[in-house]
Amino acid sequence: MAARMKIAVVAPASRVAPETAEKTRALAARLYGAAAPEIHFHPQCFLSDGHFAGSDAARSAAFLEAANDPAFDAVWFGRGGYGSCRLDAALYGALNGSARKKVYLGYSDLGVVLARLYREGIGRPVHGPMPSDVNRPGGEAALARALKFLVENDAETLEPAARDGKKVLAFNIAVLSSILGTAHEPDFCGHVLMLEEVSEYMYRIDRALFHVTSSAHVRRAAGIMLGRCSDIPENDVDFGRTEEEICRHWCARAGIAYLGRADIGHDADNKVVPFGGAGAHVA
Amino acid sequence: MAARMKIAVVAPASRVAPETAEKTRALAARLYGAAAPEIHFHPQCFLSDGHFAGSDAARSAAFLEAANDPAFDAVWFGRGGYGSCRLDAALYGALNGSARKKVYLGYSDLGVVLARLYREGIGRPVHGPMPSDVNRPGGEAALARALKFLVENDAETLEPAARDGKKVLAFNIAVLSSILGTAHEPDFCGHVLMLEEVSEYMYRIDRALFHVTSSAHVRRAAGIMLGRCSDIPENDVDFGRTEEEICRHWCARAGIAYLGRADIGHDADNKVVPFGGAGAHVA
Repeated sequence: MAARMKIAVVAPASRVAPETAEKTRALAARLYGAAAPEIHFHPQCFLSDGHFAGSDAARSAAFLEAANDPAFDAVWFGRGGYGSCRLDAALYGALNGSARKKVYLGYSDLGVVLARLYREGIGRPVHGPMPSDVNRPGGEAALARALKFLVENDAETLEPAARDGKKVLAFNIAVLSSILGTAHEPDFCGHVLMLEEVSEYMYRIDRALFHVTSSAHVRRAAGIMLGRCSDIPENDVDFGRTEEEICRHWCARAGIAYLGRADIGHDADNKVVPFGGAGAHVA
Repeated sequence: MAARMKIAVVAPASRVAPETAEKTRALAARLYGAAAPEIHFHPQCFLSDGHFAGSDAARSAAFLEAANDPAFDAVWFGRGGYGSCRLDAALYGALNGSARKKVYLGYSDLGVVLARLYREGIGRPVHGPMPSDVNRPGGEAALARALKFLVENDAETLEPAARDGKKVLAFNIAVLSSILGTAHEPDFCGHVLMLEEVSEYMYRIDRALFHVTSSAHVRRAAGIMLGRCSDIPENDVDFGRTEEEICRHWCARAGIAYLGRADIGHDADNKVVPFGGAGAHVA
């Protein structure tokens, strides 16, 4: 029998509920039986420090420990929220050879970490569902997809544009806006850039897309695909444009190709997008 | 008798209520009698197109018309909200010699326009109260301050750090974050950068300050002063840090001097900050 895959879960942003860990392991056991991956939730996931899953130092140390541990095949981020940009900037320079062989899976706020890993050519950063998604309506399907990607590397889990050898990237719009011009900004050159949003007023989506599409670096992308923008709060006056009209507007102004909708978002249908594309190598 | 000052009001972002125009003119008449400035609200102020005070084209045309008209001494922005970044990018190249002699007064979303004017050395861009502030509690004091600056160029209206020859800039944090890396980003070199915020969750203030202080260009500033952060919505978990702790944190991480509090904000006490300082020249 093949060795079971070993997955470390850490939480560089907000806290993971203990029930989330139980549900995640139970689902993996149900789906894979004796061959289920070992999913180790680092105790840091359950710490609490105001908004965060422990102090900046605790979150940084847990991530570094999990990434550098040769016993683990993958680092799965437990939950988004907010806090990834507060990790110790020095940790990226301390990632070792084991860290360079791993898959890193998450999205939303974790885009900050995934982008930095991609920029530095460390491991295989991947946009996709996280354990906390199990708490969404239909969320078990999202986790099953993430596991199918991690355990089986199944191409059916991928966003269609990521299947055919294209270079791809996927980000939450507000998160991407917040890393432009920082040490986390990835190379967009020639990439299809998929963008999604949740719980932002339409005017904020508009402003963030102004910012993103104004970047000379983003303008080197092959084009932009718009994922789902969900739970948009009502404007006091209706904004008067849909998110797709907004995205087309800013792409046209910036001379960036608008390539249609992407099958990603803060929901159970969120597909997997390996940064760089399905065939991207792990160093 | 000296010629009365002539002020054009336009609205590059959200719509101005007609009552705001009446209240503004009534206050000017009460304060200055026969010497009151003529305050001309461009009809564009009262247009409506979804979120905006008219279409992007209408707002761009009104701003260009007011700025280029030699009959006006100043352009006063009627209200913030959102929309300044949607103005036609070509208009800045179409500003004429009259536009280069004017004062431009506003704040919040208008930071996008003020920054661009400052970057291009056009006129005298100034952070300060707008007509819509008359609707705040105590708002007449804000407008009286703005008029005292426009009509009398009174140094008492200035934020104290702007009085003593220092180079200064003032921005809403989210707005500044959204123009970094764009054609609107001003030169921060050697400037005291004042920052204020309104109606943003603490975690968003934290994220935006990560972004702002990560900019290599912002790091050339002489330092950051923190204005008021008001109407902060409650976090689902208390964020655990005050806005000043947040600002000190990011300044320390970035090696930027934290220079204390600034007397600016989305309120009646909001002081005037001429970009570049009190002695900054108009071209």
